Amino acid sequence: MSTRQLEVSNRFQRLQDKICRALEDLDGKAKFVEDQWSRPGGGGGKTRIIQEGDLIEKGGVNFSAVHGELPEKIKSALKLPDEAGQFFATGVSIVLHPDSPLMPIIHMNIRYFEMTNGTWWFGGGIDLTPHYIVPQDAHIFHRFLKETCDRHHWAYYPAFKKWADDYFYINHRKETRGIGGIFFDRLSDQEGFDFDARFKFVVDVGKTFVPIYKYFTSLYKTADFTPEQIDWQMLRRSRYVEFNLVYDKGTKFGLDTDGRTESILMSLPPQAAWVYNHQAPIDSDEQQTLDLLKKGIDWVSYKEKETVDMDPDWV
Amino acid sequence: MSTRQLEVSNRFQRLQDKICRALEDLDGKAKFVEDQWSRPGGGGGKTRIIQEGDLIEKGGVNFSAVHGELPEKIKSALKLPDEAGQFFATGVSIVLHPDSPLMPIIHMNIRYFEMTNGTWWFGGGIDLTPHYIVPQDAHIFHRFLKETCDRHHWAYYPAFKKWADDYFYINHRKETRGIGGIFFDRLSDQEGFDFDARFKFVVDVGKTFVPIYKYFTSLYKTADFTPEQIDWQMLRRSRYVEFNLVYDKGTKFGLDTDGRTESILMSLPPQAAWVYNHQAPIDSDEQQTLDLLKKGIDWVSYKEKETVDMDPDWV
Repeated sequence: MSTRQLEVSNRFQRLQDKICRALEDLDGKAKFVEDQWSRPGGGGGKTRIIQEGDLIEKGGVNFSAVHGELPEKIKSALKLPDEAGQFFATGVSIVLHPDSPLMPIIHMNIRYFEMTNGTWWFGGGIDLTPHYIVPQDAHIFHRFLKETCDRHHWAYYPAFKKWADDYFYINHRKETRGIGGIFFDRLSDQEGFDFDARFKFVVDVGKTFVPIYKYFTSLYKTADFTPEQIDWQMLRRSRYVEFNLVYDKGTKFGLDTDGRTESILMSLPPQAAWVYNHQAPIDSDEQQTLDLLKKGIDWVSYKEKETVDMDPDWV
Repeated sequence: MSTRQLEVSNRFQRLQDKICRALEDLDGKAKFVEDQWSRPGGGGGKTRIIQEGDLIEKGGVNFSAVHGELPEKIKSALKLPDEAGQFFATGVSIVLHPDSPLMPIIHMNIRYFEMTNGTWWFGGGIDLTPHYIVPQDAHIFHRFLKETCDRHHWAYYPAFKKWADDYFYINHRKETRGIGGIFFDRLSDQEGFDFDARFKFVVDVGKTFVPIYKYFTSLYKTADFTPEQIDWQMLRRSRYVEFNLVYDKGTKFGLDTDGRTESILMSLPPQAAWVYNHQAPIDSDEQQTLDLLKKGIDWVSYKEKETVDMDPDWV
């Protein structure tokens, strides 16, 4: 590995360690179990799984650093010239399925990609899939992300927020996977940015993950929920499965390149349910959630509706 | 509709009716609920769903007859010339997820496709996904199919059995979806066959469905099962989800052409579970099932192993 490759992959591994420790603290019961694996073509990874916790029902924090030949199919999909040489890719990827239907599903990924010919880029993002969308929470979540982005460039948040809206879209349901977040890819030396600036940003995104999850844990870890809310959670989880298996490019890339299936599919929920033609009751929290699974909602500017002034003299 | 289109779609609808009645009899508790739908581009269908029965936990028997313009993308995937004109497609499609883990999941599909320029073909098949593979059952199932095929042409069964093995394969798991069955597509006027011969064969496949399901019902409907067997069923169902969302061409075609999502995804199980890196115990029924999820097993020639002759004089 080159110095740069070592620098990025070490930093990512340290993030994995810190995040796992923080999540074990938040959970209070379950511990991560690690599987180290190596890739026949070169490199390997550490898959860490937490299951049946007080907070997290099933979750994974994956680290990998792999290298080798890129299949022709992928080389052309990435629009890389034949002489680009071998690839190196390292990343951290997290998906947490909480026990409580009141807690959101969260996903974070940061990644670095390089070719022998010097081509390099970063990608990643954080997005949230609440089983029940609470607008005030969505507002706070997006403010976390905007503040992280704004520390690096004012144009990041609006661009990457839109990217997430477009990416996490379940076309056959005509709904977004959740309330989006930020998503970005191929951040390289465009527009005056350099490697250090991009690297710092991506690490900062990684560091934003724990405070966000802590915030939701403090709100919902001990809150009571009903069996009906669990039913709804199972239904929302099935939509998560549909997105990941039908649309997610990372999943497709992994399965197409004979990646380690159990590490790739750790993103899938512990269970999910499909009910034919489910209809949420009018005016229910479930229906409100469906109504908010839309692209383009400006969550940062969202404000709690003020109490309507009921004029007593009106009648 | 032309006379031929009417003839095929009426026959298919009659099959749907008969199959639904037979399944309600076998179930004894649940009844089908019908949703009629029409397609904005032309045609429509009848989706019939049965849920929470004594035998069937969730199942669907779909009929559709649709027509109109074919998206450019699909036209080229089907290798149809530009001047092929409009399409007409009609079919019956069934997936049943039984309540008992001892009963297999079953899938049947028969379909007819036609273009204005005169191009036509039939497709379809029946395949079985037992949660627990019992070799003797697999043998009987394949004999049902072979007998149906042999009534029409001696070459059908071996060709369509192999086609099913290749088609129902979950590459990222390196396992077949179940024990296969028969699968065929684009059966037209090749090699001296005519429309009537192909049509009769496809209807015969459709008529083979109920006797097969009756056979398994008689064996397993009232047999006891354990909570551990339900856990295993949930795991096998998750593989069914993976196949249908990642590989199944019919599902992809439907989702890509903005088909009716609830009718397309009626094939998904009522629930499914994903356990990280699940390992079946050595010598268990679960492990035996995994060992038999392979292509190329000659189930028709399978015979119960005879008792090994333990020579008492050997020592």
